[in-house]
Amino acid sequence: MVKSPGKDADIFVGNLIDERHGGPVTIGYGRYAPGQSLIETMAVYDTMIVLEGRLSVSTGNGTVTARPGDIVYMPKGQTVTITTEDEGALTAYVTYPHWAEAHA
Amino acid sequence: MVKSPGKDADIFVGNLIDERHGGPVTIGYGRYAPGQSLIETMAVYDTMIVLEGRLSVSTGNGTVTARPGDIVYMPKGQTVTITTEDEGALTAYVTYPHWAEAHA
Repeated sequence: MVKSPGKDADIFVGNLIDERHGGPVTIGYGRYAPGQSLIETMAVYDTMIVLEGRLSVSTGNGTVTARPGDIVYMPKGQTVTITTEDEGALTAYVTYPHWAEAHA
Repeated sequence: MVKSPGKDADIFVGNLIDERHGGPVTIGYGRYAPGQSLIETMAVYDTMIVLEGRLSVSTGNGTVTARPGDIVYMPKGQTVTITTEDEGALTAYVTYPHWAEAHA
């Protein structure tokens, strides 16, 4: 697991599949500590599935709270604020294109 | 939820996001009844996250059994056999490119 590059929040991500594997998507698990807030303009199309805990995602269209089994789709170009409160969250994510290349 | 096109197995899939939404990925939930077996050569890069139950995925490299929280990556061109036994399974999936277009 590596700390999310360029971010100070207590959020860890680990890729299982990425540009080294020859396919078009990056896949991994993310862990968000409690009490985090991360604002990001999406550089990739990111699909996040909540596996444990709870997190909220806010956009100009409002806020959704996602619980285990919920899917959050964050298209490229969208500005999102991801927050956790008392609980952290464990997520799985799939990005297209590769996240590392988009952030290089 | 719609039945998986062209398949007789008791497997239902429902897209939340697809080619109608302007992005590059199709996202949805799939439900596999107990006792199913589906052989498929992947027309897309498919990432499946098991949310409930259990399923097994076999390739030429062996068989993995996936449980809640496990991620199964099935690259385009790979031939996979997906089976359920006594339990069915609920999954989330993300495909690139769009699944409907690849099967058209």
